[in-house]
Amino acid sequence: MSQHIRAAIVGATGYGGVELIRMLLTHPNVQITSVVSSSSAGTPLAESFPHLQEIIVDRLDAVDVPLIADKADVVFLATPHGVSTEIAPKMLDAGLKVIDVSGDFRLKSAETHERWYKRKQADAAYVDKAVYGLAEVFGDDVPGAQFISNPGCYPTVTSLGLVPIVKAGWIDTNSIIVDAKSGVSGAGRGLGMTTHYSEVNENFFAYKVNKHQHTPEIEQTLSRVAGKDVVMTFTTHLVPMTRGILSTIYVRPIVQRSEDEIRELYRQYYEGRPFVRIREQGKYPATKEVWGSNYCDIGFSLDERTGLLTIISVIDNLVKGAAGQAVQNLNLMMGWDETTGLKFTPAYP
Amino acid sequence: MSQHIRAAIVGATGYGGVELIRMLLTHPNVQITSVVSSSSAGTPLAESFPHLQEIIVDRLDAVDVPLIADKADVVFLATPHGVSTEIAPKMLDAGLKVIDVSGDFRLKSAETHERWYKRKQADAAYVDKAVYGLAEVFGDDVPGAQFISNPGCYPTVTSLGLVPIVKAGWIDTNSIIVDAKSGVSGAGRGLGMTTHYSEVNENFFAYKVNKHQHTPEIEQTLSRVAGKDVVMTFTTHLVPMTRGILSTIYVRPIVQRSEDEIRELYRQYYEGRPFVRIREQGKYPATKEVWGSNYCDIGFSLDERTGLLTIISVIDNLVKGAAGQAVQNLNLMMGWDETTGLKFTPAYP
Amino acid sequence: MSQHIRAAIVGATGYGGVELIRMLLTHPNVQITSVVSSSSAGTPLAESFPHLQEIIVDRLDAVDVPLIADKADVVFLATPHGVSTEIAPKMLDAGLKVIDVSGDFRLKSAETHERWYKRKQADAAYVDKAVYGLAEVFGDDVPGAQFISNPGCYPTVTSLGLVPIVKAGWIDTNSIIVDAKSGVSGAGRGLGMTTHYSEVNENFFAYKVNKHQHTPEIEQTLSRVAGKDVVMTFTTHLVPMTRGILSTIYVRPIVQRSEDEIRELYRQYYEGRPFVRIREQGKYPATKEVWGSNYCDIGFSLDERTGLLTIISVIDNLVKGAAGQAVQNLNLMMGWDETTGLKFTPAYP
Amino acid sequence: MSQHIRAAIVGATGYGGVELIRMLLTHPNVQITSVVSSSSAGTPLAESFPHLQEIIVDRLDAVDVPLIADKADVVFLATPHGVSTEIAPKMLDAGLKVIDVSGDFRLKSAETHERWYKRKQADAAYVDKAVYGLAEVFGDDVPGAQFISNPGCYPTVTSLGLVPIVKAGWIDTNSIIVDAKSGVSGAGRGLGMTTHYSEVNENFFAYKVNKHQHTPEIEQTLSRVAGKDVVMTFTTHLVPMTRGILSTIYVRPIVQRSEDEIRELYRQYYEGRPFVRIREQGKYPATKEVWGSNYCDIGFSLDERTGLLTIISVIDNLVKGAAGQAVQNLNLMMGWDETTGLKFTPAYP
Repeated sequence: MSQHIRAAIVGATGYGGVELIRMLLTHPNVQITSVVSSSSAGTPLAESFPHLQEIIVDRLDAVDVPLIADKADVVFLATPHGVSTEIAPKMLDAGLKVIDVSGDFRLKSAETHERWYKRKQADAAYVDKAVYGLAEVFGDDVPGAQFISNPGCYPTVTSLGLVPIVKAGWIDTNSIIVDAKSGVSGAGRGLGMTTHYSEVNENFFAYKVNKHQHTPEIEQTLSRVAGKDVVMTFTTHLVPMTRGILSTIYVRPIVQRSEDEIRELYRQYYEGRPFVRIREQGKYPATKEVWGSNYCDIGFSLDERTGLLTIISVIDNLVKGAAGQAVQNLNLMMGWDETTGLKFTPAYP
Repeated sequence: MSQHIRAAIVGATGYGGVELIRMLLTHPNVQITSVVSSSSAGTPLAESFPHLQEIIVDRLDAVDVPLIADKADVVFLATPHGVSTEIAPKMLDAGLKVIDVSGDFRLKSAETHERWYKRKQADAAYVDKAVYGLAEVFGDDVPGAQFISNPGCYPTVTSLGLVPIVKAGWIDTNSIIVDAKSGVSGAGRGLGMTTHYSEVNENFFAYKVNKHQHTPEIEQTLSRVAGKDVVMTFTTHLVPMTRGILSTIYVRPIVQRSEDEIRELYRQYYEGRPFVRIREQGKYPATKEVWGSNYCDIGFSLDERTGLLTIISVIDNLVKGAAGQAVQNLNLMMGWDETTGLKFTPAYP
Repeated sequence: MSQHIRAAIVGATGYGGVELIRMLLTHPNVQITSVVSSSSAGTPLAESFPHLQEIIVDRLDAVDVPLIADKADVVFLATPHGVSTEIAPKMLDAGLKVIDVSGDFRLKSAETHERWYKRKQADAAYVDKAVYGLAEVFGDDVPGAQFISNPGCYPTVTSLGLVPIVKAGWIDTNSIIVDAKSGVSGAGRGLGMTTHYSEVNENFFAYKVNKHQHTPEIEQTLSRVAGKDVVMTFTTHLVPMTRGILSTIYVRPIVQRSEDEIRELYRQYYEGRPFVRIREQGKYPATKEVWGSNYCDIGFSLDERTGLLTIISVIDNLVKGAAGQAVQNLNLMMGWDETTGLKFTPAYP
Repeated sequence: MSQHIRAAIVGATGYGGVELIRMLLTHPNVQITSVVSSSSAGTPLAESFPHLQEIIVDRLDAVDVPLIADKADVVFLATPHGVSTEIAPKMLDAGLKVIDVSGDFRLKSAETHERWYKRKQADAAYVDKAVYGLAEVFGDDVPGAQFISNPGCYPTVTSLGLVPIVKAGWIDTNSIIVDAKSGVSGAGRGLGMTTHYSEVNENFFAYKVNKHQHTPEIEQTLSRVAGKDVVMTFTTHLVPMTRGILSTIYVRPIVQRSEDEIRELYRQYYEGRPFVRIREQGKYPATKEVWGSNYCDIGFSLDERTGLLTIISVIDNLVKGAAGQAVQNLNLMMGWDETTGLKFTPAYP
């Protein structure tokens, strides 16, 4: 009751924002009190998203910090890169709790940020304040935090697939190759040739090869867990589907462990974390098996012929890779059960 | 509390069954106590549907009426055509409430059933007992019923688009043409050439032209509402997508009414029924705008040039066209609010 | 030999243009001598379309009429609406043969053009000169013409499905309802929300209901064939696929004919026209069955219950609905066999 | 003229067979004289594939060796695994030229074949006789051969991406990791859960991880080229599209070469081979850019951070990965230009 909080969603006309709305609408402890958009302020949200007709009848607020601070306790920033850099500090200064779904505050090194994002990072004081909310790994940092930087989609699916074995020291951390594949919704609602239907349908291609800005975010997590610098090879591909990410991860073990022992290592690491599910021997997760839900499913194949370990990890990029994990971080921040409002069963088929 | 009931789902390895599970898992008044399958009895459900791993760990029960009657208060039959004919009577005799999602008990005329389904109908005593659960139209029949025959997917989307204007007597009931388009999941999980990926992807075609078994079901509803026999033209097409049905309906008005008056007629007819949403002038619903939800969205275009009225109606075939409406019927049957456990926001995109 | 001609393609960076290139590259009597684009002039075509790497190494020419008149004998205009209005007259005055794939010169009535296209039509002298190249219907007008206006995609598939029975006087011409469905490539390469992948994939919707600018083009053809004004109801839908159009056409017969007699009527009408194929009783064409080819396939269902005739007609919108029919018109214009260079077997699956 | 030959296609009701038909119908030196199917013998081919109506009106022949030997000079075997083992020897003994598109004769080691295909290999005398027709690599073996074993789809796209650099000795042959992704048509027309539309659409998953039977075929090619045993890691994934394969290949260079030098190495290796196209720096091929054509397009990224080289290679699995390369082998076998009848421009979009 007293735990009930009021939430504002900035960037409500984007895919991350609208997925936050879907998640929060049925969250028992949260009330959406403001939907915010710089581009469509003053119009009803259902004009941008007719599926919300008669569900959310509110008009969109402008990005007006005092107004939002007045209407809400927590604000979710589901904004394009660069916007949070400007507005998150103001929101924080106004006393709001902030959960930033963008990439602006994820990297702790300003230099690395600038190299990969090709723009200057936010004020260091606020970057320092941001808690990186990879819930199953660094979730202990979240309770009581005011400011969460929510992990990216590729970093979530990839880091969850790698952290237990990296932490255990069982693999050569110089050997990591991540071949990742994403649905198109990850590119957002902004128009572009690589999201144009006739170009993407019945097509498959790689993009940003060795250049994806999520690379240093994954390396930062793995380095933190490993206690030493980790550099990896990372390739991203576009799959002709809307939602879902799958990372196929190749690593070279340096200690002799059976596939079952590896599976057991992961089971123990994620014990008590309901959103990570480990597959049985010979079973590999499909993206559809987590569609619309906050799960991350992981499978393994240790190849006797080459000695390499293949790890396959999947999430729904808009849920566990964005809105769902943001709500999970809100739950942890508030001291609620981390599954509160997140018990979405995958929609199958 | 006392309202809590135990539910069994027969046909849990099909798409209708698994969607019932998704809906019922978060229903506050229902507990799933048995998942039933004739073909996979004894195996864990998650073996058939890995997306349910750690969500439902139960093994599938066989179609054993005493067992089900012992474990459950209500049983949902999401079985292939012909199966309910056999088992629904036994379930009813055992005192279970039954909600049949198949087509076996929908038609009141045994002769019509046999002509369109090419098989004999069930025992007439049970057919008589079946309440046809088109919730927004015949929902008043449902409270207290023991046996619900849940409408088909095409009949739901089409009837909801036609009933108000047919009932008002505003159109020539001999003029109705329904051009319907469905996603592939309506065909179920059984294999076939017209559900084979490489045949369906990047393809669009009509099937069962003037022969679809849902034709008499729609005509039965419209005739009942009109108070006279209605015969219509009905064509079904397969869309290369998984979920969603859209019916484009053409009718000839016989009384002079503006498009706004027609819209108002529908608004009044569906007043207080939260799952039907009427679109504004010039707006037409897309199937994605109801994806995963129990909504039926309807739009209109009255053509000044030809005088014809075009009605466009959409649902998610697995939700409002099957599992969702079944749960809605359970709610009505039990005297609960009809939206209980059904507040799924459409998943967009 | 002496029949060999040189062709220029204006709008080579659009889907219509690039499909013309695919068709003409293997045409035995044609040499592509200029690829033209206003937006990308000076760059290699393969930069816009990497699939043409090492096939066409030419740089794009600007829209320079003297240059084109110097390099080519015939010019194909695959340009956005409004461009041909400006440049076709200049091309014609320069002595070029012109085949216009846009809608600018299709309608003979300036008033109708302006009402539906919301822009003024071209100079009437040039509109008069334009021969409407619906090859199987008005093909006799084409030999020797200098200027062809190539039919639109919806008009081609729909008119070919209707002309024989309209001409025969077997149906009530006030009863025609056309429910058409198109793949997304018909909308071209220009970006927009209704061609954005995440909005279109796993979605189906109607657009421009009773407002599509192809409506008067179809009516013009039917009126010409019927010898009286024909007005019809026309709805267009977007299918989540790249290529293909299917029209489901509903008409009311006014003379008693069997389905076989109707089929025979069509067979006779299209005798000697190899690109129209009539399906057997109970068989309906799928868009994939003409994918990549110049065929139009047509099937029929005469419903005994309602007396209505359903006609189903399919084409590949980019081939028979654009580039292929344009080449067919070139063949007819030049007195070549109409299949020259057009023997593309549908690519299946 | 005298070079004209008669061709039979066994397995004409499968996707490989029907693609062979599409290719051979416009081949200037070939006449299809028999289409053969064990399952549908006696029925018209167009009953199985309506897109061939009025194109091929022949009825399917049974698998009758004397009949085929009488009607044809060359026979293409596009049959399920195991069938060629039985019939290829008989065809060869009857004096036919045989091009086997199946996997039965690709592996030279009977033991390896049995381990990966889980069935005994064909008679060793015939295996020895089979020339492995990877045209751009081993094409010199083909002229004059009677019996060609046509490479698999994954082996073609992967081997063409690897052979030049393996042959040059520039990489550690123990470091090769191949992450491959295929459209669904590669699984053929036979029904199955992993080709069921609702299971595959809007889904992405790995299959046969470290177990795909194409693994030893690629290793055989690489070992032959390297002059030593090569063992690699190979993962296959299913993409929700019909056609196309992309292999992302990771290798560790052992000699210092720039990305441009690597590109130049490939250009030289494939000089004079028109079906392999090398992409410029920073450009990576998409599967759609080869759709329907016999091209293999290859791009490169040498990562300065990790030192690894990423090679991306694409083909149309049904063309260069099956029917197209089979025709290319026929051309080489007969001493014709290897592009004869194969100048299909990719169909885009």
